[in-house]
Amino acid sequence: MSLPIDGVRELALRPAGWLSGRGPHADTVLSGRVRLARNLARIPFPQAAGDQVRNEVLSTVKPAAMENDYFRGAAFFACQDLSPLGKQALVERRMASPDLAGMGPGSGVLIGSEQSLSLMINEEDHVRLQSMFSGLDLLEAFRVVDQIDDQLQEILDCAYSEEWGFLTACPTNVGTGLRASMLIHLPALVLTRQIDEALKAMVQVGMTVRGLYGESSEVAGHLFQISNRTSLGSTELEIIESVERAGRHLLESEVRARETLMEQAGRETEDKVWRALGILGSARVLNSEEFLNLSSAVRMGLSLGLIQSPGLGVLNELLVLTQPAHLQLYCDQAMEARERDIKRAEIVRERIKGWIT
Amino acid sequence: MSLPIDGVRELALRPAGWLSGRGPHADTVLSGRVRLARNLARIPFPQAAGDQVRNEVLSTVKPAAMENDYFRGAAFFACQDLSPLGKQALVERRMASPDLAGMGPGSGVLIGSEQSLSLMINEEDHVRLQSMFSGLDLLEAFRVVDQIDDQLQEILDCAYSEEWGFLTACPTNVGTGLRASMLIHLPALVLTRQIDEALKAMVQVGMTVRGLYGESSEVAGHLFQISNRTSLGSTELEIIESVERAGRHLLESEVRARETLMEQAGRETEDKVWRALGILGSARVLNSEEFLNLSSAVRMGLSLGLIQSPGLGVLNELLVLTQPAHLQLYCDQAMEARERDIKRAEIVRERIKGWIT
Repeated sequence: MSLPIDGVRELALRPAGWLSGRGPHADTVLSGRVRLARNLARIPFPQAAGDQVRNEVLSTVKPAAMENDYFRGAAFFACQDLSPLGKQALVERRMASPDLAGMGPGSGVLIGSEQSLSLMINEEDHVRLQSMFSGLDLLEAFRVVDQIDDQLQEILDCAYSEEWGFLTACPTNVGTGLRASMLIHLPALVLTRQIDEALKAMVQVGMTVRGLYGESSEVAGHLFQISNRTSLGSTELEIIESVERAGRHLLESEVRARETLMEQAGRETEDKVWRALGILGSARVLNSEEFLNLSSAVRMGLSLGLIQSPGLGVLNELLVLTQPAHLQLYCDQAMEARERDIKRAEIVRERIKGWIT
Repeated sequence: MSLPIDGVRELALRPAGWLSGRGPHADTVLSGRVRLARNLARIPFPQAAGDQVRNEVLSTVKPAAMENDYFRGAAFFACQDLSPLGKQALVERRMASPDLAGMGPGSGVLIGSEQSLSLMINEEDHVRLQSMFSGLDLLEAFRVVDQIDDQLQEILDCAYSEEWGFLTACPTNVGTGLRASMLIHLPALVLTRQIDEALKAMVQVGMTVRGLYGESSEVAGHLFQISNRTSLGSTELEIIESVERAGRHLLESEVRARETLMEQAGRETEDKVWRALGILGSARVLNSEEFLNLSSAVRMGLSLGLIQSPGLGVLNELLVLTQPAHLQLYCDQAMEARERDIKRAEIVRERIKGWIT
């Protein structure tokens, strides 16, 4: 039974820019992301607005955004037209938030052709613009959203107070409306039991720590999201710099922890990496969590030079492709958890085998 | 640092007949073995004899045995000339017993050129003759020892009583002096929790159940040794038949358990087999016990046709080659446990990689 066609499949099977594995420190910092929250002046926030108002917001914001060069060739997906699977796939690709997936008429997302850029309309705010790059390059991500924002501001009348800055539905976003985050892989800090201390230090410098898929997600595969907690009282660049500084600090701690690990248990670490590769290349049943944990070991092995392949691009692609909605889109078939575990193993095997030597 | 040369190395690195993986049901019954215990009349048993007597026994039995065609090209190893490692390697190859390894002057073992045949002198009895074949072929193993025994009887004056039969140091061997055994692989009976019942039934029909390396050895890798408990009150052929019958019964139970396993958890079984192969082909540190357990899964996979390679011969060879003394002989180097775990992983990997697809 084929799946209903809602356009997400084609997008989901194309490589996304942020998964390329290129960019500074991309072996450990999977991606850097900057998003801006904006709202139209004198119009209720999406949660408080009726369908008519929300549709008006959509028909104001969408054409304004599409005038921008960055959105040339972009695809728009209206929430009401998307299947649950399509929505889930956009969340898995980090092109839409789980919150957007729950919204109805007037809500949707515009996704740039390289899938490094997305603009959600009528999510928590009228506009949520995000740019995401492979590796640690928050400044570049900020440069992109800032340029788009400048052009949008010329067309749209945004809610802004001289005292507070940009107004947003949630007070934590008031001010710059900016959130900068990075997805960072910290296996050695976990293995050497330094992670709690390292994350506590992050909180002390104003960062929020979350798992791979946002606030409610568990920390799986040693992947952590670090972002600024507040967006008020600092300039955009100050926020970017504070997140980047915190990220670099974590990165350095992780590098030191890896050195310790290799000094004190080099052979065991190598063993762990190769076994993970061996299992990924041979398993016939593989659940998401195990995939994340095994691929964490492989990623660390690549980063440490213990193995040379598969490349980061392959690992990053699998990170998304092995998730439930992507698996079903890839196979063009609705599948229960058990079938997915079998198909996941098959897909991973295809990409991993041949790398085991 | 090279190891002292005592001739065992050359033997240990040659394939042994019983490891070939050929013969009836060799995928599940690794080997069938028949041994006879004999003693020279009017001479104290080895434990009670002094060095001089023991040396006389040696110089009587050894030339008598070497006259036999089956021992053409055989190698003789005197216990007092063997290094501890050499002794251990002969035990690992199942050419000598742990008891022989502890004996001094006058004790030794004559090993046939194909390593299917061995004759221990001054172990528990003056003569312990064993024949061992790959697969379930106790009759053939008996035929060989019986022929050799007939020729030996013509030369040697053996302790024999009309009432009791052949006299031996331990009462359990009195009578025929025959013990027939098989090494059988029962993973599905273990996995389906039927093993205790199956082994209890063996005991009820007069069998003894042990692990891979005799009485005191733990049951590792789902490998069990089944043998007759007493050698009195039945003819040789009756004993052989009773052990063979018991073994066939176990074999059938194992086959049924595998069918159940495949029906109820076929995918998981396949997964287990492939993962075992994946880990064996990639691990960098591997201890004996883990090797036995992983190779158990691979062996079952071969038997079930879930995988086609590596062959049984490779698995059987590794069963011996991965053991402590063999590893050290193979590398021609004394090694501590940790070094062995690393070298074991390397040797297994060399033989397994390329089979993972």
